[in-house]
This record gives sequence, structure tokens and C-alpha cells, in this order.
Amino acid sequence: MGERAAIFPEQEFRDRLSRLQSALNVNGIDAILLTTPADIFYVSGFLTRFWESPARPWFILVPAIGRPVAIIPSIGEHLMQQSWIGDIRTWDAPNPEDDGVSVLIDAIMGNVPKDGVLGLPMGLETHLRMPLADFNRVIAAIRPRRIADATTALQRTREVKSTAEIEKIRSICQIGAAAFAKVSEIAQPGKPLDAIFREFQAQLLGAGADWISYLAGAAGQEGYVDVISPATNTPLLQGDILMLDTGAVKDGYFCDFNRNFFLGTPSADVLRVQEALWNATERALEALRPGMLASDAHRLLHDALRHNDVRPCRGRFGHGLGLTLTEWPSFTPLDQTELRSGMVLTLEPSAFTTEGRFLVHEENIVLREHGAELLTPRAQRLEVL
Amino acid sequence: MGERAAIFPEQEFRDRLSRLQSALNVNGIDAILLTTPADIFYVSGFLTRFWESPARPWFILVPAIGRPVAIIPSIGEHLMQQSWIGDIRTWDAPNPEDDGVSVLIDAIMGNVPKDGVLGLPMGLETHLRMPLADFNRVIAAIRPRRIADATTALQRTREVKSTAEIEKIRSICQIGAAAFAKVSEIAQPGKPLDAIFREFQAQLLGAGADWISYLAGAAGQEGYVDVISPATNTPLLQGDILMLDTGAVKDGYFCDFNRNFFLGTPSADVLRVQEALWNATERALEALRPGMLASDAHRLLHDALRHNDVRPCRGRFGHGLGLTLTEWPSFTPLDQTELRSGMVLTLEPSAFTTEGRFLVHEENIVLREHGAELLTPRAQRLEVL
Repeated sequence: MGERAAIFPEQEFRDRLSRLQSALNVNGIDAILLTTPADIFYVSGFLTRFWESPARPWFILVPAIGRPVAIIPSIGEHLMQQSWIGDIRTWDAPNPEDDGVSVLIDAIMGNVPKDGVLGLPMGLETHLRMPLADFNRVIAAIRPRRIADATTALQRTREVKSTAEIEKIRSICQIGAAAFAKVSEIAQPGKPLDAIFREFQAQLLGAGADWISYLAGAAGQEGYVDVISPATNTPLLQGDILMLDTGAVKDGYFCDFNRNFFLGTPSADVLRVQEALWNATERALEALRPGMLASDAHRLLHDALRHNDVRPCRGRFGHGLGLTLTEWPSFTPLDQTELRSGMVLTLEPSAFTTEGRFLVHEENIVLREHGAELLTPRAQRLEVL
Repeated sequence: MGERAAIFPEQEFRDRLSRLQSALNVNGIDAILLTTPADIFYVSGFLTRFWESPARPWFILVPAIGRPVAIIPSIGEHLMQQSWIGDIRTWDAPNPEDDGVSVLIDAIMGNVPKDGVLGLPMGLETHLRMPLADFNRVIAAIRPRRIADATTALQRTREVKSTAEIEKIRSICQIGAAAFAKVSEIAQPGKPLDAIFREFQAQLLGAGADWISYLAGAAGQEGYVDVISPATNTPLLQGDILMLDTGAVKDGYFCDFNRNFFLGTPSADVLRVQEALWNATERALEALRPGMLASDAHRLLHDALRHNDVRPCRGRFGHGLGLTLTEWPSFTPLDQTELRSGMVLTLEPSAFTTEGRFLVHEENIVLREHGAELLTPRAQRLEVL
């Protein structure tokens, strides 16, 4: 049996660790405890779909100085040994008496001084993937060590992607585009939407996706009303707009973009909205620059929609992308996150039709010093099937 | 655009609510706060792949008396309106200033008396899917209401499946079996394992899976060393054992079973292990009864393996199944959960070859008053490609 080829060279992880440790030091945090699939993949390269099982917690502790420690169920030991992480401590999980708590406490005690600070991602778009009762036991046991929010240290590190990460995302965007290019082969009037969803996922796999973590979409006359639903078995109709939105995965990295397909010539109203969305995205592609805030990106897209005489939807107009389907920041009026060179982002304006339905259009970009660079092949202005 | 056909009739959810509320009352809990995809799907029928985005928290509060309240991002309002939940409160998420915290606090205040208890799943195999800092704000704001662990109330309710749920799981097991039956068409010596993984996922979709949340596997001479890895591009060799293990999904319900395929005649040693695994599963199928404990199921399988002269692996030998790839209980020596009629379970013994590699074999069952009923079509004793 062949050993696993690493997704990234070890230097990639050394660079990530160095950047994260700088951020920890700046924020006065002695170690950060990571518990989610994306955070653990980020620092270790440990990639598995086994996260789908909620049975077991997994931990990586990253001290501000020194090497990360993996504290994981023994079932993952062999796979973690193929990563660059040298210090791997295991227990047989799930254990109703002590599900990794004592080995985790030991690791924290050994890496955070008594008067020190353990950081955790506790802010917007984070959660703690371990049982709350066990977390409370850990906090009690490590006193007087304090707990602090380490969201900023983690997010400012992860949000700027390396060249290697950007190429991974570009690659899955190209795979997504190859599948979108074949939608005409599977979407015909009379065919149920759920069958189209199944065949589109097969096309993504055929184009090279490792797996498809997300597919949503909709079909309707004069727009749609919901973009997060699974498919119904309602047949596609002539005159429908079919929207497919996918988060396919390659080497652990996501694309997140959609396409609108028109089954026949769209009405003037729908055409107006589709044009406005395309133009708004075009405007953002021209004008986005590092140093702007997430709220500026929202305003750019919002103003462009108004300028094109359509009524913008209320939701966010884009977000970060990479190790999960969506990452911070969010293009909303409230998000003051600074956009920086190397961020991978989605542009995702949405606007209402006069029927009270809406359309959405999405592209993926990497922000460079000079502006946006597309990672998705640019959508056609109008795609009629 | 067609409205969504409900996955279950409303009576199914009324029955679930009634059982959960009885359990809350027995445990002295005034309301339980649910935050995970499976728990929210269980009480509401709200099914979406949008959980893949970590950006937003979602909440359902189930009071011990009365109707559930959904507190959700407005992007999900239309889909939730198609569920049986009548009380839906929304906010525009993600909001860095107040991401649902104040609307959640209001709902708790209105459903839990001042001297009352808010329950949360806090135990083994649970986690809280919301930012920890926001949770701390909620706890502080609802004082003097107390927080209690509601894991038992929730798990004793969810673990006994209804007839309708069992039929959903049977259906996805049959879909899985149909895809396994076609593995000979995609698995040939010389073909890289990652290509086989892609094509097997396409076969699952073709057989009727809505999506594939989990696929792991391995291939190797004389067994394998790791069953949670994504595929490498190592080509399959004559003499390999190919193992595929899938958690495919239909209507929100999972299968979780594997099959071993032998590329050529196995060695005497491997054959001995394969036979022992099959015999151990057969023994459990005969002997499992309600009233046994999860640890008894482990012992049954463990003793059967020893009786067949193989060395059992250390991991768990089965677990619950349904709304997630794995549910409690776990067939380990430590799990004292009582097995009850209506539980859907996996039998998953694993044992070492003399080479220090191992094999695993898995079936899905529903436990009835009289014993185990297979949901997976029984594996062949030996499947040679």
C-alpha cells in the first residue's frame, strides 16, 4: 500500500505555523486550542472525511513557541503520522469516562504556564467541536490559566492564502467550471430537479472533484425564492431559470460559485436582473483593492445594483473561501474586516425580480495588490440552454 | 416552482416532540436548546446542505410544554416555513454586533421560568454549534436560569427510530448495496484508488443517493492499515483487498457500511480473518436482543472473533446510525447504554491479519423485540472480483 503523498510540502506548514505563532505572540496567547476540521487541516494537513462522525473530539494545541501537539483518537494515529506533526498523543475514543480530557489537560499544562493564557476561537463563524461538559472540566482543571478569545489571531492568519493554497482553489474552480460547461447535457424540460442534482454531482466527480460537500440550487419561472434547499422532484419547465451552486472539494479546498441557466429566452424583467448582477460583479472585479473593508465591497456591489436599476437583496454579497465552503469576512454593511492581498473571496450579489423572486450570481477571486484576479472562468452574461 | 414535499408527515414530528417533551419533564428541564444539523432536522424536518457553511448559528428551542421555536438566520426562513414549525424568528446573519444572541435570549426568557432550567446536549458525542463567546453572553443574560446537561433526554428520544425513519435508512442501505454490486465494473488492477472513489460516488448517485457525505476506504495486500483516509492515487494491484465504506444520504438519513473486495484469491491468512469477521457478524445477528448493553454487543463480537482464532482490533465494533453517519451508543467495553427495540445500529467488527494489518466488515441493522433485522442486504462471505 502506497504512503500518502502530502498535499503540501512541509515548508508550507512551517510558514503557517510561523505566521500563527507571530499572531499568538502579538495577542498575548501562550497556546491556541483547535478543534474543527478546517483549523486542524490548516496547521497539520490532516485531511479525512471521518469528521462526518460526531462521535469523537480531535484536538491540536499550537503553542506560541515550539511545535504543535496533536491529541487525537487512536483511530486517526496512522493518518496523523503521515503529516508533519511529530508530537501525537492518542486515546481510545469514544470513552464515556474520559474522552481525551485528561490527555488534553496534560498537553495544556505542559504548554501554557500557570499564569498564562489558553486561546480558543470563540468569535463570529467559530464553534468548539467538543462536548461542552468536557470543555468545562478542562477549564476547571487548568486553572489558574486563563481562557481568551483567539479568533483574531487565527482568522488574520488563515484568511491570507499562500500561493499553494490559491492554486488548490483555482484547481477546484476549474473543475466546477468544467461541470457547469456540461449542464446542457443534463438539464432538459421535464427532468426532475433532483435527478439534475444527482447528475451534476456525477459531472463534478467526473471532472476531478474528490467529493461534493455542497450543492444547492433552484429552478423557477421569473427567478427563485430560496437558494439553500435540497432539490425537489419537480420537473424543470421551459421558461425556468435553473440555478446550481456548488461547493466541490479537491485536496481539501473548496470552490463556491453558481451559474444561472435559462431554459429559453428570459423575460425582459429577468434579463434586466441578470444583466445587473453580471455588471455589478464586473464593477467589483475592476474596483476591489486591498485596504478596502468588507463593508466597502458590499457597498460597491450594492451601489452597482442600484445603478443598474434593480433592488438588491438583504443578504451578504460575498465572503471568504478556502478550507470551508464559506469563510469570514462577510460582505455586509457591518463587517469592518480589512481586505488584504492574498485573500480568496466570493462576489455574490443578489437582486429581486419584480415578481418578488430573486437571482444570485457568484464568482470566486483572489485579491492581489493591484486588484481582483478571477479564479472561476468568468460567467457568460447570459447562458441560454 | 413546486413547494417541497415533506419528508415525513406532520404526525411524525408531533410524536417526536411528545417523546422529547416527556423526557425533558422526567429530567426536570424546562426547555432544550438545539444547535446541530441533526438535532434541528430531527425536531423540525429542516434539511439543507447549507450547514456546510460555518458562518451562521441556527437554533431550535424546544420547551417541555408547547411548540418549538426556530431562531434562525433570515436566509433560511423560506425553507423553515415549509416545515411544521410555526414560530420562526429570524435575524440577518452574519451580524458581527449581534449574531442572533438577543433574539435567542428573548426566546429562552419566554420559555424558561426564572427559576427554571435550560437544557443543552453537553455530553459524549455532542457539541454546541455556536460561537462560545456568544454562548457565554446568553448564559449571563438569562440568569438566574440554570443550565443543565440534557444529553440523556435527547439521546434516549432520538436513538429509538420510528417506522418511517427505519424505512428511510433501509432505503439508503439498498442504494448503497446497489452501488456495491457494481464495484466490479470500476475496480480493476492498475486503476488508481482515487479514480475508484470518484466512480463509486457516481454509482451511489446513480443508484439514488441524494449526496455522499462519507466515503473512506483502502486497498492493500494482506489487509490495510487505516480506514479513515481519503484515497491516494496508488493503483490497485492484483492480490489487493479493496475496502469501500460509505455514508450515503437519502432524505437526510445515512447508511454506514463497507464491503471488502478481493482482487484474486486471498491468502489463507486473510481468508481466515474475513471468515472470522463474517462469522462474528452472523453471531451478533443471531444473539443481539433488546435489554443487552452496548458493552454486551462488543463482547459478543469480540468473543466470536476470538472463537474464530483471530486477534480483535481495539476500536469500537459498531454504533448507532441514522441522522448522522454515526450515533451513540458505541460497542466498546465501557458503553453501558441499553439496547432497545427500534434502535438502528451497525455491526462493525475488525481484526488483525498476521501481517499486522487488519480487515473490517460492517452491516446495518434495526433491533426488534425478537432480535436483529438486517437493513443491508447481507454481505457475501467472500467477494472475489
